[in-house]
Amino acid sequence: MNTLDKNNMVNIINDEILQYLQKYCGKEMYEPIQYSIKAGGKRFRPMIMLLMCEALCGTYKEAIPFAVAIECIHTYSLIHDDLPSMDNDELRRGLPTCHIQFDEATAILAGDGLLNLAFEIMLDKLEKDFEKKYLKAINCIAIASGTKGMIKGQALDIKAEGKKINEKELFDIYENKTGKLILASIKCGAIIGGANDEQIKIIENMAYKLGIAFQIQDDILDIEGDQDKIGKPINSDLKNDKSTYISIFGLEKAKKDYNILSSQVLEDLEKLNLKDKYIYSYIEKLINRKN
Amino acid sequence: MNTLDKNNMVNIINDEILQYLQKYCGKEMYEPIQYSIKAGGKRFRPMIMLLMCEALCGTYKEAIPFAVAIECIHTYSLIHDDLPSMDNDELRRGLPTCHIQFDEATAILAGDGLLNLAFEIMLDKLEKDFEKKYLKAINCIAIASGTKGMIKGQALDIKAEGKKINEKELFDIYENKTGKLILASIKCGAIIGGANDEQIKIIENMAYKLGIAFQIQDDILDIEGDQDKIGKPINSDLKNDKSTYISIFGLEKAKKDYNILSSQVLEDLEKLNLKDKYIYSYIEKLINRKN
Repeated sequence: MNTLDKNNMVNIINDEILQYLQKYCGKEMYEPIQYSIKAGGKRFRPMIMLLMCEALCGTYKEAIPFAVAIECIHTYSLIHDDLPSMDNDELRRGLPTCHIQFDEATAILAGDGLLNLAFEIMLDKLEKDFEKKYLKAINCIAIASGTKGMIKGQALDIKAEGKKINEKELFDIYENKTGKLILASIKCGAIIGGANDEQIKIIENMAYKLGIAFQIQDDILDIEGDQDKIGKPINSDLKNDKSTYISIFGLEKAKKDYNILSSQVLEDLEKLNLKDKYIYSYIEKLINRKN
Repeated sequence: MNTLDKNNMVNIINDEILQYLQKYCGKEMYEPIQYSIKAGGKRFRPMIMLLMCEALCGTYKEAIPFAVAIECIHTYSLIHDDLPSMDNDELRRGLPTCHIQFDEATAILAGDGLLNLAFEIMLDKLEKDFEKKYLKAINCIAIASGTKGMIKGQALDIKAEGKKINEKELFDIYENKTGKLILASIKCGAIIGGANDEQIKIIENMAYKLGIAFQIQDDILDIEGDQDKIGKPINSDLKNDKSTYISIFGLEKAKKDYNILSSQVLEDLEKLNLKDKYIYSYIEKLINRKN
């Protein structure tokens, strides 16, 4: 089947990730890496990549190695983020974090391994089909996950701990720590799906807002969410003495801004005149998530 | 100048690394990354890559991004290796290790950042010159540093701590933990320098032995070396309760095997009929190193 079965998307992505791990991951690191990947949640990043690719007349299968890679990078960032010297979290999505289930050294190596695997998987696709658009997609992800992207966000986040930060500093953390990988997910799907320059511009603008909205929503769920559904203790940001959108602007403004951003995201999506509107309803559903 | 100035090689490599860092590394992570790179020693891996490339009629400049990348990967592996949950080393090359100079979270991120930077730098070269041989070189490095290479070696090394391991297990650690990245350095230089399949085969065989020899030499220097010259405490393997070539075979056999391997490396090199013999004398000098 060349179109993505919309009723079975998470399973399709999970199957693909496990197949790729079986092929590319060395057996010494397989257990902790598979454990951390399997603990994974919504598969939001691979999902929007595949849907964006398909919506732009691409066949989603072309984007699979990149979707797997982005989930590997996301999972590595969570494993390292949870370490005692970072956020020191013992629970994620209702399960012991990697360094609790195994040990710290294993968790560090599992994260390193996942980042490396992401590149191995994407490079192998490029070796099989030596096309410039695939290189463009790899580069897009590489820059987003690096010291001018996700790692920058992580560094800023750590530096901000226990401090009062201002609005600009908060946006800088949100944009880099989570926003850029979300942007890369959507943009990669667009590149592989054959988007033109004008479409890429609209998508970048939309994805930036989606990244920020996603983070504000996380902050709201951290206060109002159901611990069982989120799979981690609520009020954990408060516990870690972290500045959030809510601690700076208050809950009411957070909700208001979240609604404004969400509507803008959906408006931007409409501008793309996509032949397949499924991504629209997926993002709409995501905006209304409760966990 | 298109040929490498042999009297100034380390400086040339150091300058290139710093220039690449200035261009590619985000400012938030620049200080710890630059600190760890600057603390670096012999630049053995980039050096043999450039020399092998040049010896095979390549111009060494083509290989520079890959040489910088391999040193980034080597440095990241040292930073993570030194962490408290790994080898817990406070001193490397006479200087405080990254987590001592900064903190643990920063050291983890600096390592992550360096691995990511390595790929960004190589991918950018491929974006500029879209040639299959560059992709082959990136892939060669990616596999060597991954869960079937360096990370596997690291995982085996940790598992072996405090245990008695056998000869086969020791070789498995040596081959993966250090051997594969050394092999990748030489092979990359050969790929970029335009080696044919027969030459690649000889080089792989030679580089495998060089990797093992290099590790045995490290073990010998850990016992007999001069602490000030090595820049870390001697007998550190004993302290960490690590099996080494010496703890398994004794010092005398270690020295004998080292000499046999070294001669074989030089014999293999002669088979290549290189027009530029400098790499031969460089490796010869390396074999006789005292630190």
